[in-house]
Amino acid sequence: MSKLVGSIAEAVKLAGVRDGMTISFHHHLRSGDFVLNLVMDEIAKLGLKDLTINASSIHPGHAPLAEHIKSGVVTCVETNYMSIEVGKTVSEGYMKKPLIFRTHGGRPSSLAAGKSHIDVAFIAAPTSDPMGNFTGKIGKSACGSLGYAFEDAYFADKVVVITDNLVPYPLTDFSVPENYVDYVVEVDAIGDPQGIVASTTKVTKDPVSLRIAELAAKAIDASGLLKDGFSFQTGAGGASLACAAYVRDIMKERGIKGSYALGGITGYIVDMYREGLFEAIQDVQCFDLKAVESLRDDPGHFEISSTQYASPTAKSNAARNLDVVVLGATQIDTDFNVNVHTDSRGYIIGGSGGHTDVAEEAKLTMIVAPVSRARMPVVVDKVLTVSTPGKDVDILVTQYGIAVNPKREDLVEQFAKARLPMKTMQELKEIADKMNGIPAEIKVNKNKIVAEVLDRLDQPLDVIYAVE
Amino acid sequence: MSKLVGSIAEAVKLAGVRDGMTISFHHHLRSGDFVLNLVMDEIAKLGLKDLTINASSIHPGHAPLAEHIKSGVVTCVETNYMSIEVGKTVSEGYMKKPLIFRTHGGRPSSLAAGKSHIDVAFIAAPTSDPMGNFTGKIGKSACGSLGYAFEDAYFADKVVVITDNLVPYPLTDFSVPENYVDYVVEVDAIGDPQGIVASTTKVTKDPVSLRIAELAAKAIDASGLLKDGFSFQTGAGGASLACAAYVRDIMKERGIKGSYALGGITGYIVDMYREGLFEAIQDVQCFDLKAVESLRDDPGHFEISSTQYASPTAKSNAARNLDVVVLGATQIDTDFNVNVHTDSRGYIIGGSGGHTDVAEEAKLTMIVAPVSRARMPVVVDKVLTVSTPGKDVDILVTQYGIAVNPKREDLVEQFAKARLPMKTMQELKEIADKMNGIPAEIKVNKNKIVAEVLDRLDQPLDVIYAVE
Repeated sequence: MSKLVGSIAEAVKLAGVRDGMTISFHHHLRSGDFVLNLVMDEIAKLGLKDLTINASSIHPGHAPLAEHIKSGVVTCVETNYMSIEVGKTVSEGYMKKPLIFRTHGGRPSSLAAGKSHIDVAFIAAPTSDPMGNFTGKIGKSACGSLGYAFEDAYFADKVVVITDNLVPYPLTDFSVPENYVDYVVEVDAIGDPQGIVASTTKVTKDPVSLRIAELAAKAIDASGLLKDGFSFQTGAGGASLACAAYVRDIMKERGIKGSYALGGITGYIVDMYREGLFEAIQDVQCFDLKAVESLRDDPGHFEISSTQYASPTAKSNAARNLDVVVLGATQIDTDFNVNVHTDSRGYIIGGSGGHTDVAEEAKLTMIVAPVSRARMPVVVDKVLTVSTPGKDVDILVTQYGIAVNPKREDLVEQFAKARLPMKTMQELKEIADKMNGIPAEIKVNKNKIVAEVLDRLDQPLDVIYAVE
Repeated sequence: MSKLVGSIAEAVKLAGVRDGMTISFHHHLRSGDFVLNLVMDEIAKLGLKDLTINASSIHPGHAPLAEHIKSGVVTCVETNYMSIEVGKTVSEGYMKKPLIFRTHGGRPSSLAAGKSHIDVAFIAAPTSDPMGNFTGKIGKSACGSLGYAFEDAYFADKVVVITDNLVPYPLTDFSVPENYVDYVVEVDAIGDPQGIVASTTKVTKDPVSLRIAELAAKAIDASGLLKDGFSFQTGAGGASLACAAYVRDIMKERGIKGSYALGGITGYIVDMYREGLFEAIQDVQCFDLKAVESLRDDPGHFEISSTQYASPTAKSNAARNLDVVVLGATQIDTDFNVNVHTDSRGYIIGGSGGHTDVAEEAKLTMIVAPVSRARMPVVVDKVLTVSTPGKDVDILVTQYGIAVNPKREDLVEQFAKARLPMKTMQELKEIADKMNGIPAEIKVNKNKIVAEVLDRLDQPLDVIYAVE
């Protein structure tokens, strides 16, 4: 028995894709992913329409999706993140139904509860056998963890695995076993290795970012959480890595042995693991090649599903034991609400990803951001879009000082003791306004909702309007 | 956050075990398992009654369960195998409701479909962290694969992990992740290592068994399946291993490179893997310490769930690509129906396990058995209990020759070409009768059904009556 079929078109037909169905994709190949575009081209050729795409994220490489939205092949997208390339089309009102934004933990939770449903999942697999045992760890398009693809396989009615590295049965080190897979398609390439993972991730050299990162590390230290057993998540951006670099110095200096690093993983975190600063890495996504290699080779570095990462309705998740998370913000308001969905003109340029999830779960949720960027204030009266509610944010670290959420009076004391510079949100907002002038209000078309932002439990959190 | 609770009694209460509920256990610790007995003792002490036990198998070490059946603490058992120690009590009619026999593939299929349901699963885990990431690969009670426990964790409402090797969070090489687990209990010992796995499994020295094994290997060879890519399952009994030994010789002699070995795994199969005779071992259960060590150390030897092993309703399973399986029989009748449930007096002494599953899936299903044992015929007119239907059995290999199921005329030709001795079932039955005399009919009480034998799809296949 073999599940191999000759082409994507054949798999689309065999899996029974019909008008109005929901099909899914994962984003582990990031901007290098070919699979979403290949499948959508075949679906368009077949004359199908009114499809919903449930994708864990939509990246710049998925720009051709904009045309399928305009043509009505795709009338809805459900995702956790959408970059401007497709976001622009949605923001301009071209998509028939509103986009549904979830979080990285909310998506698997919603699928498990049957609140959202996938008819056919198309899973880009860097390696698969003919029965559909698949992994992201090996192959020319290796992307490491396939954490966000587990639930597509578990919950979709039909599952199509698309691979460019077909190996003999049985693949031994699979991420998802054959019992979840219906069809396997071999193609020349599932992605462009250049786009799949950054070849390297680097610490920022920007002095403002470095100042923020250093202050963030001092705040972590002052919080009392930076001790043996410390657990940590940070992003792949230069400032986040810079914060990790300062944390690393403190840990090495004091011989602190951390427990685990979590989240999207970079080579920088791998280095910290290899230096003995963390016992383990819980990896839902690899951000660079070093992380991919490490997932393959380092015994303490292991793959977790997005449910295990951050599902709010799982019996537990790895984020629940997290001490500190360092997150970014496009905007943050005086109530600590964070926007990572829309830009200063109101366009969709991102999404929560795991932001909202980990913010709620971690003991210390810290936003690192300059008070303004490119002459636009980051600290504002009211964010355009609430991505992560202020109740889940503990502190904001800027180049001018730290603002502490009033609900965390304990931190105010600790930071004062450590002589860290503190400011109120109002003060930071005034600094931003002084630097840039008070920004004109963003004009949006309140008669047209283009996206609904759901919280971790699939409840409405905010809406995004069409740009004017 | 931690899921640790102080005792089994506390976990029983927290998990909400109540009268009439179904609780579950796995059998990977085999006869050395302490956990079923420990939990049932606490449940009895709490005065609970009318419980159903859904256990993948019941072994001799679970003898105390008989008392809980007699006292009404347990009024039903659902299992895939039950040895005589508890089987005697059931056969004598002490259990209030009929026992439900399923198969190793049917059990997870039934759970996934919601045809059977587990309220609270108690999972013996050789290693766990405080959040319930657990594995059987390491720890003083290491049993290797936990293949039959996956679905208990996936489908039970509440999951209690009981371990004697609690390790710091996070355990990296887990079999089941924390998101399925509610409570973790640490105990002194989950089992007796002497009983958990046989320290060694040995090829038989009995000349009749050796004769059968040699003939079985020749039949495999003559079937044309023994070539590169060969896949194979055999049991842990001496005769099954002897058959593997002959197959091994042929493979080595001809340089045949097999694909995978499947099923319960012994050190003998590990040796064949290490000699390069198989590329991979798909392991749902380890039968000895060498298999446990190999699962930990050999890259091609990997753990599979019972769904992946043999669920008939999974999108596929590992048995579906199996070339040859060698199975045993307590009785086999002239229609090739096999009994592995009851003995010559009608007592429950076993069960299908994976017998029925793999028999249906494999290309060549071969029963190896002498025509009689201990002066009781094995080949009979009609088996007392149908465990595996004759339609799924291709050949019977005895010391007097091979009987081929009439539906497999192709094999008759191949065996004739290879000059293998063939007999009809009728002829074998007559030989058995001549050796032992025609056996007295087994007396059972047809007014009292003590067990229902379900097929892989939860449909009635046979019933077992009380002994007289």
